[in-house]
Amino acid sequence: MSEEADLRETICTLAKSMFDRGLTGGASGNISLRLPDGGLLVTPTGSSFGRLDPGRISKLDERGRLVSGDPPTKEMALHAAFYETRGTKAGAVVHLHSSHSVALSMLPDVNPDNVLPPLTAYSIMRLGKVKLLPFFRPGDAAMGGAIRGLAGKRSAVLLANHGPVVAAKDLEAAVYAMEELEETARLAILTRGLNPRMLTDAQIRSVVDHFDVEWD
Amino acid sequence: MSEEADLRETICTLAKSMFDRGLTGGASGNISLRLPDGGLLVTPTGSSFGRLDPGRISKLDERGRLVSGDPPTKEMALHAAFYETRGTKAGAVVHLHSSHSVALSMLPDVNPDNVLPPLTAYSIMRLGKVKLLPFFRPGDAAMGGAIRGLAGKRSAVLLANHGPVVAAKDLEAAVYAMEELEETARLAILTRGLNPRMLTDAQIRSVVDHFDVEWD
Amino acid sequence: MSEEADLRETICTLAKSMFDRGLTGGASGNISLRLPDGGLLVTPTGSSFGRLDPGRISKLDERGRLVSGDPPTKEMALHAAFYETRGTKAGAVVHLHSSHSVALSMLPDVNPDNVLPPLTAYSIMRLGKVKLLPFFRPGDAAMGGAIRGLAGKRSAVLLANHGPVVAAKDLEAAVYAMEELEETARLAILTRGLNPRMLTDAQIRSVVDHFDVEWD
Amino acid sequence: MSEEADLRETICTLAKSMFDRGLTGGASGNISLRLPDGGLLVTPTGSSFGRLDPGRISKLDERGRLVSGDPPTKEMALHAAFYETRGTKAGAVVHLHSSHSVALSMLPDVNPDNVLPPLTAYSIMRLGKVKLLPFFRPGDAAMGGAIRGLAGKRSAVLLANHGPVVAAKDLEAAVYAMEELEETARLAILTRGLNPRMLTDAQIRSVVDHFDVEWD
Repeated sequence: MSEEADLRETICTLAKSMFDRGLTGGASGNISLRLPDGGLLVTPTGSSFGRLDPGRISKLDERGRLVSGDPPTKEMALHAAFYETRGTKAGAVVHLHSSHSVALSMLPDVNPDNVLPPLTAYSIMRLGKVKLLPFFRPGDAAMGGAIRGLAGKRSAVLLANHGPVVAAKDLEAAVYAMEELEETARLAILTRGLNPRMLTDAQIRSVVDHFDVEWD
Repeated sequence: MSEEADLRETICTLAKSMFDRGLTGGASGNISLRLPDGGLLVTPTGSSFGRLDPGRISKLDERGRLVSGDPPTKEMALHAAFYETRGTKAGAVVHLHSSHSVALSMLPDVNPDNVLPPLTAYSIMRLGKVKLLPFFRPGDAAMGGAIRGLAGKRSAVLLANHGPVVAAKDLEAAVYAMEELEETARLAILTRGLNPRMLTDAQIRSVVDHFDVEWD
Repeated sequence: MSEEADLRETICTLAKSMFDRGLTGGASGNISLRLPDGGLLVTPTGSSFGRLDPGRISKLDERGRLVSGDPPTKEMALHAAFYETRGTKAGAVVHLHSSHSVALSMLPDVNPDNVLPPLTAYSIMRLGKVKLLPFFRPGDAAMGGAIRGLAGKRSAVLLANHGPVVAAKDLEAAVYAMEELEETARLAILTRGLNPRMLTDAQIRSVVDHFDVEWD
Repeated sequence: MSEEADLRETICTLAKSMFDRGLTGGASGNISLRLPDGGLLVTPTGSSFGRLDPGRISKLDERGRLVSGDPPTKEMALHAAFYETRGTKAGAVVHLHSSHSVALSMLPDVNPDNVLPPLTAYSIMRLGKVKLLPFFRPGDAAMGGAIRGLAGKRSAVLLANHGPVVAAKDLEAAVYAMEELEETARLAILTRGLNPRMLTDAQIRSVVDHFDVEWD
């Protein structure tokens, strides 16, 4: 119980930190994490990262039924798809509407199999290749299907005209990876049309090999 | 009374949150909400969202006369026009000088009947079509007239070279809608000239139909 | 004494607010205000707006001699020049290194007699015409002379490759005017090359006349 | 001991200030400072500037061995190289992944011997010439060698596709210098392609001579 209370506090603290720094606004964004008993803690539908209440976070049992708290985010399918396909590598999932990632998702010439340009080593290390998925109507269950279609080979996707979703072993790792995703998208927008020097194939390979990154 | 005290606190909390995140600065921006007895709470003229005092918020009776607190914002006509024409759909009104919305309002090629480009589903869901209104001198009562001219068919307008005004059923909904408006304007500025993929007419229609959006 | 204590607190509160919202960073920026006895309170040299100590603010007597606190900002000449030439209209002076204002000051085609483009009514109302002054080496006493050369006809100047200086009747008014200056510069940078609709001469004249703006 | 406790608090306070204002995000950035006994305090590996714990900061003895706290940043080589080559001029070192500095580091036409354009006097005064170093894989010990290769003649470097490193006499000075570096990079990006007026050679020389800047 004390561990669960800590996890509830961590969700609220990290959500507020992202909100205060402009990573997601209004009532956008949602977070989930896996409890030791196989259940989930999930941010409630309609809630704002700026004012989450630890006592009202949705608690689901291992079969996905609401045990306590407010009803969970309507984007539950995004989260469930990562837990189902990534196994123990998915201990937490974060979804934001972060501005530069959304902007990047709309540009006509990005590579859908590796949407982030290789501008720094950190997005490669923390995210591997990020898959661009098409636009879905909010709440469309097909979003979960699109993530399942990746068969657990990717830890992060970018939903076109919507925003990124990142899974990692725990919530801190998921937040740090998400911040690298948004930072890299921001660098891509800031340097667009300016012919920035990117990492070479050899430099990318060196990072992938040295840090054992999921890249294939 | 306790409910009114809560509403006063909510105004101050949400105003400070928007101020701290750069959505409006200095002494710009104003908020109003409808009380159960038909009166209004309104942020005072000359006040800053960063330092509102719950006890000094203007309280108006249902005929618009100041009952207590400091004199209300000089842009009261904007607020009144929404309450008069939107009926019970207008429980709160928010007006900001948010930067990207103001920037978008000045661009020569926007569509005045639907000023936000269809970049995400969220601005459509929360705002419907946003009407661009022309420039008015601050305090010009004609601003209220321009909103009345919409006959209650729009929940949000963008005043050219000035800023957006959003009405919604309650203050949280108005703030969330306002944040989507500014976010969409920001995405429009970030991707300007980059040929971003927008939602197709069919995708827009799907969102409008599914979420019962005011669109005509 | 209680009034002076309040003024010291107000300096620290408004400085921290500007710092936290990115209006000036590091150890940049300085503030002064006129005390009822003709002396000045001034932020100390080398201090950061993020961590001012009310008890260490420089207090000068009416002849400019340090009475208590740390030594004042090295840019004292900027402040003194406004107090000397603006009379009772200058109750406080704020100087920042705000990013967009500095960026605007470097652009080759701005009008040095009216450096802010007429994008909104608010910069006109709060600032009148803002004069662009040339670059001076930090600490060069000629900066004060350049402000004196305006003979008290301007409440705000923009130092090229350096930053804006704004005088107003009290500190809140100076901060609000400064925020409009930076906001207008930001809008100018955001819409540069996009052919934004500006206020017409007739609209500018209407604002100037209605709000009795210093414009000649 | 009380002095060390103060230094630990200062590290946490300044780190959080930079984090909250968006100068570095996630788990990026690291700080070190020299203790009076020749040892170092260093931010731990994997920690976030937003939530440092003074009691867990790494303490190294003068030979670089961990005395207490969590293991230090993996980028220790960057810090050590400045302490070894700058002598008493290096009392603290700060490294960030600040966005505009990283963006500038990738542009194809910057001058690697003086990567910041002369846009204001402040970057010259606080940083002298900033050297652009090539990309290294994170953790590559060659980074330290590249800094040693400067033979102590530079107080700041910019690692390509990675971020800046700044040394100064104490932590406040290092933070203020770092903020000028990022601010100047931001101004360079904001005015790129707009032909900004820069300081002339004579103006640069005047600043360098008057403030005794390391420039050769």
